[in-house]
Amino acid sequence: MPQRVPARVGDPVDAIDTPALVLDLDAFERNLDRMAAASNGLRLRPHAKSHKCAEIARAQIARGAVGICCQKTDEAVAFVSAGIHDVLVTNEVVAPAKIERLVELAREATLGVLVDAATPILTLSNAAAAADVVVIDVGAHRCGVASGEVAVALAQEIAAAPGLRFRGLHAYHGAAQHLRAPEARTAAIAHAAALAGHARDLIEGAGLICAVVTGAGTGTWQHERDSGVWNELQPGSYVFMDADYARNTPGPHDVHFTQSLFVIASVMSVPSHERAIADAGLKAFSFDSGLPLVHGREGVEYARASDEHGVLALHRDAVPLALGDRVWLVPGHCDPTVNLYDWIVGYRAGHVESVWRIEARGALG
Amino acid sequence: MPQRVPARVGDPVDAIDTPALVLDLDAFERNLDRMAAASNGLRLRPHAKSHKCAEIARAQIARGAVGICCQKTDEAVAFVSAGIHDVLVTNEVVAPAKIERLVELAREATLGVLVDAATPILTLSNAAAAADVVVIDVGAHRCGVASGEVAVALAQEIAAAPGLRFRGLHAYHGAAQHLRAPEARTAAIAHAAALAGHARDLIEGAGLICAVVTGAGTGTWQHERDSGVWNELQPGSYVFMDADYARNTPGPHDVHFTQSLFVIASVMSVPSHERAIADAGLKAFSFDSGLPLVHGREGVEYARASDEHGVLALHRDAVPLALGDRVWLVPGHCDPTVNLYDWIVGYRAGHVESVWRIEARGALG
Repeated sequence: MPQRVPARVGDPVDAIDTPALVLDLDAFERNLDRMAAASNGLRLRPHAKSHKCAEIARAQIARGAVGICCQKTDEAVAFVSAGIHDVLVTNEVVAPAKIERLVELAREATLGVLVDAATPILTLSNAAAAADVVVIDVGAHRCGVASGEVAVALAQEIAAAPGLRFRGLHAYHGAAQHLRAPEARTAAIAHAAALAGHARDLIEGAGLICAVVTGAGTGTWQHERDSGVWNELQPGSYVFMDADYARNTPGPHDVHFTQSLFVIASVMSVPSHERAIADAGLKAFSFDSGLPLVHGREGVEYARASDEHGVLALHRDAVPLALGDRVWLVPGHCDPTVNLYDWIVGYRAGHVESVWRIEARGALG
Repeated sequence: MPQRVPARVGDPVDAIDTPALVLDLDAFERNLDRMAAASNGLRLRPHAKSHKCAEIARAQIARGAVGICCQKTDEAVAFVSAGIHDVLVTNEVVAPAKIERLVELAREATLGVLVDAATPILTLSNAAAAADVVVIDVGAHRCGVASGEVAVALAQEIAAAPGLRFRGLHAYHGAAQHLRAPEARTAAIAHAAALAGHARDLIEGAGLICAVVTGAGTGTWQHERDSGVWNELQPGSYVFMDADYARNTPGPHDVHFTQSLFVIASVMSVPSHERAIADAGLKAFSFDSGLPLVHGREGVEYARASDEHGVLALHRDAVPLALGDRVWLVPGHCDPTVNLYDWIVGYRAGHVESVWRIEARGALG
């Protein structure tokens, strides 16, 4: 049972019940078009962990994406159930119960999954799951094997395992997406490219075909695209953007994406001229990457949050806020903020044009 | 459509699919019993924003609670739909569409709502909504009127408005709950009690009956209880507790509540002896009050999070972690963490005893 729909198609934007997650459809479609045009013929497999919404996945595939990435088995279940037929789970899946669910999906869809250790290969093989991709640590220091030599050994195990196909390498440098200086992002991906290219060369030197080198995110994808190493790109946040990505200094040739995602909140208390309280707090935004930014109101800041409230601080020269006034906010971090909502309300020219279900909201398993 | 149930009644705890929100039922029931016993005959109206779960509300009411508090209109809708018949919405509701929903609820349940400005009184009265409580700022500096005199004026407007009843004062000091030193909490609530008591006296001096002074949270409720001012208590987090409450130094007479809420995560990658990756990150916990704490494993820390991963740092002398190992984590902040899950899995003596729906999860409106 999802929560109540906050708007109906045709409603004026000002009638949307708050707090609501809303999408500027013009900006959103422009972002999709720009990424499709700029991927330069490389395979685009956008990451659906950002939006968790089958309608958005379909819009990406309609513009040429080869499929989507998911991060969780149950996200993949939600998307395959909604008719998406090519999913790479960009994560290691080791629990036997989850592998069983993947096997079910692999009957209906083209399915890939990552491996960075030998043990799950046997489980996957016994279940005859899917295509496998070896994950290599290219600097993020999260998951992944530490060297090309280990990657070769795993690739050989996968290739030899009944029911599995070795497809290639997953090389994703998450931390590089948020390095503020363009030179720092360039350097991080140059280093990642050297590691991934070396691993690919070793694997092919061992007689295996490394069909795919997949990775990249919204902050760096142009570097992966131009590296000569990656042939599949996985950006996710570009469809929405957020306050944290806005803190990156763009490089001279960076493709520009527009903020399309907002939370609309309403003023529910005005205790003083300097302070107004909005109806969106810790359960309406993820605060891991900082506070939301107020959009389109000079001199108003989202100063602090409690569970269900946001305290808005007004500068002396700001236009005063009154009870019921609506405040548009840019989330600090789009992905975990979207995960708090059941619906995303698309608008254009002042009216609601779509109300899309966020099917994989809360898909943690 | 909620997400898949992570366990079935009767399953061993080790078979729960991860990440999962789990409840130690012995500790949970002990917490409920302790609060019921220690509220000393005052009305207990626990805050359901913490648990958002009708089964838990029923367990509180079965132990003598007079009803529950909600923070959002749609939470109240969820609880009244689930059969809870006395709800105080401890928040200002100003949007006409939300007031309409409250009016619907007031036909089925005893319903209260807060007011800290004159405008919504007219809207509420026109809709003939419910009982009203004036909210006063007692030091939290969020919502609320700034003085007893303003409270009197609002109370008189409510009492005169057709369809409304003036019930009393809401005085809640959220920030005081998390002051670390017991003396600081004592002082904050002593100050709040002086303000609330003064407002109550002014209201009664003006010839109105201030039947209820309601407020208090898990960090300070004993001070409100013993103040002689409050006669209704609203603690919420005591059913679960969290890492942030554990940072409070207890006072000498504080009732002790046990940690009953955990997230179980699984190790999905072991890149080195010092680092293991768990399957629970920014979408599995709220990080506003700090990182989750590892429970029951010496020398292992939850060091950082990304969207779907938690990086566990192992000290040199820690027992190594292997793929598939399960790690129990105490959330930094219970309320917004619970809001990320559709189900809470209760266990006792190593087995799953209950799987409760979190009906008001995501009820933002």
